[in-house]
Amino acid sequence: MSIKTIERKVLQKNDEVASDNRLFFKKNGILALNLVSSPGSGKTSLLEKTLEKLKTRVRMAVVIGDVQTDLDARRLDSFGLPVIQLVTNGACHLEATLVQEALSDIQAEQTDLLFIENVGNLVCPAGFDLGEAMKVVIASTTEGDDKPLKYPAMFRNASVLVINKTDLIPYVNCDLAELRNNALRINPSLTIFETSCVNDDGLDNWCDWLVQQVEK
Amino acid sequence: MSIKTIERKVLQKNDEVASDNRLFFKKNGILALNLVSSPGSGKTSLLEKTLEKLKTRVRMAVVIGDVQTDLDARRLDSFGLPVIQLVTNGACHLEATLVQEALSDIQAEQTDLLFIENVGNLVCPAGFDLGEAMKVVIASTTEGDDKPLKYPAMFRNASVLVINKTDLIPYVNCDLAELRNNALRINPSLTIFETSCVNDDGLDNWCDWLVQQVEK
Repeated sequence: MSIKTIERKVLQKNDEVASDNRLFFKKNGILALNLVSSPGSGKTSLLEKTLEKLKTRVRMAVVIGDVQTDLDARRLDSFGLPVIQLVTNGACHLEATLVQEALSDIQAEQTDLLFIENVGNLVCPAGFDLGEAMKVVIASTTEGDDKPLKYPAMFRNASVLVINKTDLIPYVNCDLAELRNNALRINPSLTIFETSCVNDDGLDNWCDWLVQQVEK
Repeated sequence: MSIKTIERKVLQKNDEVASDNRLFFKKNGILALNLVSSPGSGKTSLLEKTLEKLKTRVRMAVVIGDVQTDLDARRLDSFGLPVIQLVTNGACHLEATLVQEALSDIQAEQTDLLFIENVGNLVCPAGFDLGEAMKVVIASTTEGDDKPLKYPAMFRNASVLVINKTDLIPYVNCDLAELRNNALRINPSLTIFETSCVNDDGLDNWCDWLVQQVEK
């Protein structure tokens, strides 16, 4: 076994627009969360459940990034909230400029909580600040317990980890304690939730925490 | 709901080196497969099972790309085959140059089948030719049945789809027929396998097909 390493410069010009977005969110009293994960971790299902539970408690809006299709936006369109679909046409992450373009459509003065659902990708979105208050990384139990070690940038840059699909624990090779330990080794200050959108476990904790953050 | 679109140029300078790699593989009679998928789809488990089943039938080598860590290479190191770990230090895909650097370490004249395990990412690796004969996309049943529609470039550029973790079908929201249909809508010429590394289903079909490809 031999190991070779390459270096890669991360483009930083995105950060100026991200600062503008952050100022916009602050001025308008909007808590913006950047939801990041692998494809198929259940981001959209988690959003569906969250919108359902919080729709009478918090004024929300959603910006969704996808490489292609508006399938996710269609899933969320029944809640009567502003849902903006961003199609990146092959690009592997959202950038601050694209989010900025969407902000004119979200009715900012009537929004307290903005979910930005990023493209499904555990690598690239880690390096692109969108101006969010926090990154929330969603990890499915089906992905195993080693993902924080293999994709450390994402877990290091996130403030919150949602371990989703806990209902599948009996059937998959994932040690929850080990997953938590690996995540906390990478980022000791992570706030961690465990959720299942199938049996509703942990969703109320997650939603109550969101309400607390909005009211801060 | 509103839809915004951006365009992104794909860098093509990678292709020259990929052509060199392709020539190298042809000269040395090596079938090179580029394994691509989301994080946690089971690429490394599939490789473990495949190496175990084929180690007496085919001369193999493995090149593994990861953002960080050599965890995957360690898992495969017990087979006594050449295993080269490439660490991209944050980059979201393998590029042809990095693979070229690894080729000096694989004992080309003693290799008939080379697996290149790409970084876990359903987006970026689609655009980067490594010189492989085929891309093999691995999709886990836990990711749902809509991924071909949401990440079409990867499924369009692949020759083979391995639907992995079929043992979890009873517990997840994934219609196998729908997944196959969606994949074939994007790419009608896909060869499709269904596998489980837990109960061994479909692995012999997959391995027999690999042997046939090597012998072509």
